Amino acid sequence: MTDARRGVPGPRKVGLAEVPDPVVEKPTDAVVRIVAAGVCGSDLWQYRGLEPLPTGARMGHEFIGVVAAAGPEVRSVQPGDCVVSPFSYSDGECSACREGLFVSCAEGGVWGDPGTPGGAQAEAIRVPFADATLVRLPVSGITGPDIRRFLPLADVLPTGHHAASLAAVGAGTGVVVIGDGPVAACACLAARRLGAERVLVLGHHPSRLAVSRAVGAETAAVRSLEEAVEAVRGFFGGLADVSLECVGTQDAVDTALACVRDGGVLSYVGWPTAGVAIPLRSTFDRNISVRGGLAPARRYLPELLADVAAGVLDPSPVIDAELSLEAAGDAYSVMDRRDVLKVCLRP
Amino acid sequence: MTDARRGVPGPRKVGLAEVPDPVVEKPTDAVVRIVAAGVCGSDLWQYRGLEPLPTGARMGHEFIGVVAAAGPEVRSVQPGDCVVSPFSYSDGECSACREGLFVSCAEGGVWGDPGTPGGAQAEAIRVPFADATLVRLPVSGITGPDIRRFLPLADVLPTGHHAASLAAVGAGTGVVVIGDGPVAACACLAARRLGAERVLVLGHHPSRLAVSRAVGAETAAVRSLEEAVEAVRGFFGGLADVSLECVGTQDAVDTALACVRDGGVLSYVGWPTAGVAIPLRSTFDRNISVRGGLAPARRYLPELLADVAAGVLDPSPVIDAELSLEAAGDAYSVMDRRDVLKVCLRP
Repeated sequence: MTDARRGVPGPRKVGLAEVPDPVVEKPTDAVVRIVAAGVCGSDLWQYRGLEPLPTGARMGHEFIGVVAAAGPEVRSVQPGDCVVSPFSYSDGECSACREGLFVSCAEGGVWGDPGTPGGAQAEAIRVPFADATLVRLPVSGITGPDIRRFLPLADVLPTGHHAASLAAVGAGTGVVVIGDGPVAACACLAARRLGAERVLVLGHHPSRLAVSRAVGAETAAVRSLEEAVEAVRGFFGGLADVSLECVGTQDAVDTALACVRDGGVLSYVGWPTAGVAIPLRSTFDRNISVRGGLAPARRYLPELLADVAAGVLDPSPVIDAELSLEAAGDAYSVMDRRDVLKVCLRP
Repeated sequence: MTDARRGVPGPRKVGLAEVPDPVVEKPTDAVVRIVAAGVCGSDLWQYRGLEPLPTGARMGHEFIGVVAAAGPEVRSVQPGDCVVSPFSYSDGECSACREGLFVSCAEGGVWGDPGTPGGAQAEAIRVPFADATLVRLPVSGITGPDIRRFLPLADVLPTGHHAASLAAVGAGTGVVVIGDGPVAACACLAARRLGAERVLVLGHHPSRLAVSRAVGAETAAVRSLEEAVEAVRGFFGGLADVSLECVGTQDAVDTALACVRDGGVLSYVGWPTAGVAIPLRSTFDRNISVRGGLAPARRYLPELLADVAAGVLDPSPVIDAELSLEAAGDAYSVMDRRDVLKVCLRP
């Protein structure tokens, strides 16, 4: 089969390679034929060389697809089932999994990381612990609109939900979202779903902010921390109760801190670039709590999927381009240039 | 009257000065004759020049005393009443105070900070917003033992409680406390009071750790982060559920992070020295929450005082020396040399 990977050393190179087809290796494995794979903002960090990867590293961690084969111990899915996978697999049995912290499973891994079966930007993938990892989609075949509404369940929607959920967002919470990417838009969706009436999204790019408006948030394009604080004060009449940081840079973290009131919560789900830190002098006097981290997406999938399937939650707008897997290199470059928000690749 | 203050530029100098006696200036003021004032670990940062203060800065923020005068609008205390003050005063009326976040009161301040009525290491002090700030002690006069049990209510006991409370410590929580000072010992007391059965205190100085043992915790003297993690694994059979960081240095924060399990809480109340930061790469993958900050001591005073007065909570062991106010310079130097844990000054 074909998959996407870093083709040569140095940034901004993603190419294709021919690799052995995945097969069921253990009785709890499934093999999934991938119907659509997302390109994630964190893939871009790697593409840009901010997170150097070895040549040949396999790319992608978001996919939906159809089960092609299942080991004899797999109970919850069978060949032909349409499924979504969270961006990581996990055994479902260890103490971390039992607590719902699937991303801390010692037997698990994020698709594409070294030592995992492979990346999701591929024609197929072997899924360990299929029962604990995969979630069946309530469709008999994945059509065009299904891709855009279901693929965000793999990562960006549960990640946005993680931010809002950890910040205990509810009715009455004044929520500022830092970022204008797909996770930020999903954090809006999640905050609205949890009852927040006042959600303000701050980003740098007016065109990208349109997506957050499409999912029901107010937005402001700001160029500096000072402008961000001014926008927040104008919108809320004070600082926000919670900041949902969906970027991962020091600028975004500093802005998130500056926008939240004393006693409030900074919830961060942007993958932190190297060196990003919370200066405790900026949180100590103000008693700001810092929560967040890598979303245990699998934990949230059932409830989020139910709402997406019922049509009451629609993350479709965060995917605004579709390309063939062969065009993986182009997918990265158009996202890198911010020509599009999020590409899905179709093997 | 006399108070203690920075006498000359440069570190390690605290002297006395003759200043005007405080008087009631506003109808909501009280004047308190100070019976005992604590020297705090954060005073030591300043003494050591890590937090440079101007010459003449007034020192101290922990005191108990007797009301000497009260303005006509003061209702809750009257001359002759024995009182404790939290380390900061606050108006009790603003949105921050109504939320219980007294340290964020815009009209308030930490005793001794620029713009406040003065430091607590003095013969007397003017207390703004006396009703909202002072809490009456259930004694008719402050005797020797009263000093050691009630003075910790001003700062270190509610600060330790803040750490344990924000970490939602309860029965079954595995608690590691980082530090061997008075706040660490009080964090132990607070964790035990909230039901924790397993509390391990990590410090560098065996003699100082004796105080935490005296208040019911297990202790280990460790010299490095690696030794700390080893001690924690030995004690809990894994990492701790929560780390209570009671020092404020980068080493302590890093150790606290290394000792807490994925999905756990780092609760920090050590006053952060300049530059201390939480590297988000160390918390993101592990979903560690970071809570903490400056304790809203006034919020906790009623419940903690009730338990101290009832004899079920005894922070006395954290004060192991008493000196006259005239010996303020010596108090700082013996604490600086770690000859004693915490001095109380008697004007």
